[in-house]
Amino acid sequence: MTSHNLMLMLLSFGTLLLVARALGELAERLHQPAVLGELLAGILLGPTVLGNLAPGVAESLFPAQGPNAVALEAIATLAIVLFLLVAGIEVDLSTVWRQGNIGLKVGIVGMVIPFALGLLAAWLAPQALGREAGAEPLVFALFLATALSITALPVIAKTLMDLGLYRSDMGMIVVSAAIFNDLVGWIAFAIIMGMMGTAAAHVDSIPATIGYTLGFVALMLTAGRWAIHRILPALQAYTRWPGGVLSFSLVLALFGAAFTEWIGIHAIFGSFIAGVALGDSPHLRERTRVIIDQFVSFVFAPVFFASIGLRVNFVANFDAALVLTVLLLACVCKLAGGTLGARWGGMSMRDAWAVGFAMNARGAMEIILGLLALEEGIIRERLFVAIVIMAIVTSMLSGPLMSFILHPTRGRRLQDVLSSRLFLKDLHAAGRREAIHELTVLACQTAGLDTDRLEKAVWEREEILPTGIGNGVAIPHARVADVDDALVVAGICETGVDFDAPDGKPAYLIFLIITPEKDPASQLEIGADIARRFQNPAMLDRALHTSSYTEFLALLKSTPEVE
Amino acid sequence: MTSHNLMLMLLSFGTLLLVARALGELAERLHQPAVLGELLAGILLGPTVLGNLAPGVAESLFPAQGPNAVALEAIATLAIVLFLLVAGIEVDLSTVWRQGNIGLKVGIVGMVIPFALGLLAAWLAPQALGREAGAEPLVFALFLATALSITALPVIAKTLMDLGLYRSDMGMIVVSAAIFNDLVGWIAFAIIMGMMGTAAAHVDSIPATIGYTLGFVALMLTAGRWAIHRILPALQAYTRWPGGVLSFSLVLALFGAAFTEWIGIHAIFGSFIAGVALGDSPHLRERTRVIIDQFVSFVFAPVFFASIGLRVNFVANFDAALVLTVLLLACVCKLAGGTLGARWGGMSMRDAWAVGFAMNARGAMEIILGLLALEEGIIRERLFVAIVIMAIVTSMLSGPLMSFILHPTRGRRLQDVLSSRLFLKDLHAAGRREAIHELTVLACQTAGLDTDRLEKAVWEREEILPTGIGNGVAIPHARVADVDDALVVAGICETGVDFDAPDGKPAYLIFLIITPEKDPASQLEIGADIARRFQNPAMLDRALHTSSYTEFLALLKSTPEVE
Repeated sequence: MTSHNLMLMLLSFGTLLLVARALGELAERLHQPAVLGELLAGILLGPTVLGNLAPGVAESLFPAQGPNAVALEAIATLAIVLFLLVAGIEVDLSTVWRQGNIGLKVGIVGMVIPFALGLLAAWLAPQALGREAGAEPLVFALFLATALSITALPVIAKTLMDLGLYRSDMGMIVVSAAIFNDLVGWIAFAIIMGMMGTAAAHVDSIPATIGYTLGFVALMLTAGRWAIHRILPALQAYTRWPGGVLSFSLVLALFGAAFTEWIGIHAIFGSFIAGVALGDSPHLRERTRVIIDQFVSFVFAPVFFASIGLRVNFVANFDAALVLTVLLLACVCKLAGGTLGARWGGMSMRDAWAVGFAMNARGAMEIILGLLALEEGIIRERLFVAIVIMAIVTSMLSGPLMSFILHPTRGRRLQDVLSSRLFLKDLHAAGRREAIHELTVLACQTAGLDTDRLEKAVWEREEILPTGIGNGVAIPHARVADVDDALVVAGICETGVDFDAPDGKPAYLIFLIITPEKDPASQLEIGADIARRFQNPAMLDRALHTSSYTEFLALLKSTPEVE
Repeated sequence: MTSHNLMLMLLSFGTLLLVARALGELAERLHQPAVLGELLAGILLGPTVLGNLAPGVAESLFPAQGPNAVALEAIATLAIVLFLLVAGIEVDLSTVWRQGNIGLKVGIVGMVIPFALGLLAAWLAPQALGREAGAEPLVFALFLATALSITALPVIAKTLMDLGLYRSDMGMIVVSAAIFNDLVGWIAFAIIMGMMGTAAAHVDSIPATIGYTLGFVALMLTAGRWAIHRILPALQAYTRWPGGVLSFSLVLALFGAAFTEWIGIHAIFGSFIAGVALGDSPHLRERTRVIIDQFVSFVFAPVFFASIGLRVNFVANFDAALVLTVLLLACVCKLAGGTLGARWGGMSMRDAWAVGFAMNARGAMEIILGLLALEEGIIRERLFVAIVIMAIVTSMLSGPLMSFILHPTRGRRLQDVLSSRLFLKDLHAAGRREAIHELTVLACQTAGLDTDRLEKAVWEREEILPTGIGNGVAIPHARVADVDDALVVAGICETGVDFDAPDGKPAYLIFLIITPEKDPASQLEIGADIARRFQNPAMLDRALHTSSYTEFLALLKSTPEVE
């Protein structure tokens, strides 16, 4: 590579990462999956938009040929191999066994029905589903069936966490069913890849490829798991920590990937199974997981998903009828499967629907599956675009629909209810009464409440029992009828105000908590969160050193909670 | 890339990472710098060894041409860009200012003398120093002068930590001098690169390149630093944490790298300066640093250093006379510079020598400098090999010689004195006396001591004041004349033995500490370390669940100490 090529490579990676992460963050702020933003970044920088507006720029940044194209392909391949390693690590087989019966029923029915319906649909109406002339009918039908029946574990896990349902019974049932789906779905897809018998494969008989695939899975999940479980403590004991385990995990993923590429199925399958075997060991500690996970989620994955948009023109290949057909078929299949499975497992109708919508999310996994099928020639761009849109729409629907069905209530946290307009850096109050006055005035200016009434309510509450909670923090509060949502006014008073705390110390941080009367829980939740966050006396000190709302919020977000 | 190419790429990266990390760990166990092992990995897998033994295998794994060569170059380039980002982040300008006078004197004299001597030597005896026919004399002399005058901050920091000197006055002087050296050295080298005026550069006048370089440094370290300091809290407050800051750091490094590549100096210079600007902000929190640092140190850096060995044949280009000349010149220059600087700063002769040996370590930075000079055609393979060997030998000498001069004593930790032969998983003792007996017997069998005498000493000490320290831990101990080094026998007793602890709980973990009479401090240090490590009651529980010595040691090493 020449210096010019290197310069362009660095520039293109930087641009890709910047735009993908920025749009990914934006998507998350709008409560959408990050992968949506990351794909959009690729669509903006690729042939769909930039290639149309400024073909010269697009071509020199992201050329289709030459060394820079190879470099991008190499990085994207490594990225996806590592992404599947992380996905594999998240697959915790023991959850499935522990959850047992219901999870397995949801998992099995939730796969069998979409698979059967998909097979049938692809067989009966292949043209409507985007089968191109010349495609092998059986392989196409099997692919479509698999594509309809998988579920995206990462998206589901995140949705459940956002709704505060992850550790609930329903959450664990959905997660264990999704793990089962993931595992079976990828094995099925690997077999389909094997049936394609690509020319470059080193194992050229289809039965041999399928045999190798099943043998690899069986070996990795038995002897491989056993060996890893024994190797990890030795690595932790005798190599740098966590570096030793980190390198070992990556080497395992790379070798697994090379092996599955060699037998004629895709590289990512090997790193996924390596991840499953690795993640199952309780010796893989949290800190190692976090390092791999953060680097992959925030560097490699965004670059990979953005690179998809660079390859495909999403406008030219958009076929509204096909998109609608695929989307409808996908939702019907999976909702039927998930809901019936949950009913079979004995869940109520309402819960069963929620399970159905949860399982319906396809997320990143579906996109990867589609991309591999596209690369292998099983499908063409038109169907690929429809699959990507289906994956994103099902993921976007999952959270809101579950929330609509279940009305889950999750603990409110301080950082969720703060706002820059409700932040007073310099409280000048000398006493409790004045401090409460200053904070209520600000609250009423912003939320349009009646100052006198609010102040009276807060003060009455304060007189019954002072709200200094110690460690330099006070949480005066009131419930009022005329707000729809909880709000907190944060005040910092460097001289300190006596709030009659049990430890006798004055309050330097005063949080006025105003909550709706109809939601009595939120006040307690926010108060508890404040108490927990400022349990460590160092936090007060750091908070007093922040010079703006942004720094204050940054402190809260960048200090991991002690759980 | 075909499927075959992808398979080979995954296989070659996996192999490179595996061998580099394994030899890196081995080097560290032998108290040598990891980069030595990583380079050796490349030498083994490259033309020097594997290329000779099995040319076919070497050529297909690490081809010199074609897509796989491009992929490896792309990864190695990214790796070195990220490595310099981390090196830049470690450069803490405020340390230099805080340390002030002495550090700056060591830094300046420690640079000026090697630079002047190097310039002189390269001018007077260019052939003896490996200048090839056709090389530009001034550029060559400037390069050699710079190469002799830089210092490797990461190696020095690690050596100081190993010797327990990092936070001492001397440690901070050496670190601040090394930071100064690093910064000035890289700027000087960037200017030399600019003087080369490579054909591909987009800025084709040498003064313009130098102007851009100085302008870039000045801008990044003033306005850039200011902007970063303001952007980081906003990122922490409004994006996923630590993902937002992680992506931002990488984007900054990539853009900086692309810019410096564009102005005609090397990419790594841009990411280094970006790292300096970034690392200087106190808003860059520890956790973000750790994630970048671990991934780079244990994945990217090993692959990069191993890839150096793939490019150069170290045997064919080994020239003993040149190696000796470069090594001698490097040591003399830097020892003179560092020592005189320290004397000028008012340090004692002994301390000044220690500073000189510390500054003499060249480490990874020198190797990178040499590689760039090789790529630019400033030097040839013969001198490159000599520079690599000089870098490694000076790094290897640094620790032992400082230790020899200063005799530093560092706190002994439990994990340093444990051994698999001194570990008793199932203590059957019912009482204190029997427990001590079992442990002393094992100690005496292994270390060849007199059981009766040792047992008597331990028991006498125990009778004066029982050694149960609470939280289920006891630390019986004795000082004896006939051991050279501290040893600890660890015993786990599931039924518990009463050691009369202040909290009244029986001891399940019993550590018998035997220390030499001549070293009274070590007993206290080890005891204090045990008390600190088992302060958290969860540790006892985890320790009781370990099933072997390896798992026990893994637990100790993989649980970060609370400091």
